Amino acid sequence: MAGRIQSIERAAAILRLLAGGARGLSLAEISRTLELPKGTVLGLLRTLQHVGFVEQDSETGHYQLGGGVLRLGTRYLDGNELRTRALNWADSLAGRSGESVRIGTLHEAQVLVVHHVFRPDDTRQTLDVGSLLPLHATALGKVLMAFDPLAAPTDPADEELKSFTNHTITEVPALLAELEEIRHQGWAAEMEELVEGEVAIAAPIRDRRGMTVGAIGLSGAVERLRDDRGVVMEQVSYVRDAARSISRDLGAHPW
Amino acid sequence: MAGRIQSIERAAAILRLLAGGARGLSLAEISRTLELPKGTVLGLLRTLQHVGFVEQDSETGHYQLGGGVLRLGTRYLDGNELRTRALNWADSLAGRSGESVRIGTLHEAQVLVVHHVFRPDDTRQTLDVGSLLPLHATALGKVLMAFDPLAAPTDPADEELKSFTNHTITEVPALLAELEEIRHQGWAAEMEELVEGEVAIAAPIRDRRGMTVGAIGLSGAVERLRDDRGVVMEQVSYVRDAARSISRDLGAHPW
Repeated sequence: MAGRIQSIERAAAILRLLAGGARGLSLAEISRTLELPKGTVLGLLRTLQHVGFVEQDSETGHYQLGGGVLRLGTRYLDGNELRTRALNWADSLAGRSGESVRIGTLHEAQVLVVHHVFRPDDTRQTLDVGSLLPLHATALGKVLMAFDPLAAPTDPADEELKSFTNHTITEVPALLAELEEIRHQGWAAEMEELVEGEVAIAAPIRDRRGMTVGAIGLSGAVERLRDDRGVVMEQVSYVRDAARSISRDLGAHPW
Repeated sequence: MAGRIQSIERAAAILRLLAGGARGLSLAEISRTLELPKGTVLGLLRTLQHVGFVEQDSETGHYQLGGGVLRLGTRYLDGNELRTRALNWADSLAGRSGESVRIGTLHEAQVLVVHHVFRPDDTRQTLDVGSLLPLHATALGKVLMAFDPLAAPTDPADEELKSFTNHTITEVPALLAELEEIRHQGWAAEMEELVEGEVAIAAPIRDRRGMTVGAIGLSGAVERLRDDRGVVMEQVSYVRDAARSISRDLGAHPW
């Protein structure tokens, strides 16, 4: 059994640190945050610079992410089977629903957005491919948790979940009950739980082994997506249609 | 002076290899390509998996890039000052010219596309942020070479450049002469040198030190962008206007 290699773990920690913060960090800042001697950090940074993952600003001397990581990110998207299979279905879901569509997959206890189709109108929207969303406060995340036994909190006594609006589910027992309900009905709704005024719907995408490998969903204004009885069921049917079509393309049996 | 760290260089080589190929490589394939023992490669892969940069397909056992690299790529774009300063100018260049617009920066002897605005019509187009273009066969690349002494080939006896169409400049002396011309006129044209039927125009973006940090350009059908006297000069003026505006925003003196 090969063990893990410390210098790579440290290099990854530097990349994450540079990805997390403002633009550019000094050697001293990186060394302080990671609690490593400056000489050690300098050796890591030099190597990361050499391979194109880190750049040094020639004026300030500060370090920032390099172009090499962009290349990797783009290639990850190109090679992501879930995303490539889902592109057309996501477009047609945006067209049918008139709302913006996202495809998410589980990444380090968060939802990683791997595809995003803008709402089909002329308003200015920001592409959020590559962004991370909280599991418990999004329809995509609740679907991923409901259908992946490893993703959900297991202990009802776990600490409170982070609140984003006053509709966010913050108690673990309430979340577990909702996940049970989602497993039962096969889709999830998010009612202004992440952003005030925004409602989302999501359904699971399964692969040939029947495993949930991602979720597809739409989101938009509460005025459009909620009616007297709750979330607009016509929109739910569009989301579930799209999820089923992608799953079929991934080799899952129709269900 | 800190030296470079071998395990990080090897980890980077694995990531590049996974980024370059088809979907998923086996341990044996990676080990063979990098000429490293399987045990060594396995230790590197385990660590890369642990930090989220590599994923292993549970069915085939093959390794592929992980979601962590997407996150880094997106954050690189967010933190890229050239790109953030240029967003609005790129939009307005696409609007004025009616053509698609790209912003490129130098990365490992290629053009790394850091921003791409679609041609403002309804045709289907592919976002190519993160892709790499050849320096000698693109207007963006010729600008980057003309204004960055380190990027251009120095020896006229260098081997032939790769040909993409029968208009690609493949002889180093001819390329050097064209770069001299580009330095003189302040912009570059590409006449079906990368893709048959496609013409492009680009101009340099400078920062507060007067250094060329990138290039902005448009590209489109030869029928729209070429007239009797060569490239359409009205379009050249739009590109140069945009490049000057971004350079001013980056702190360069107007020139």
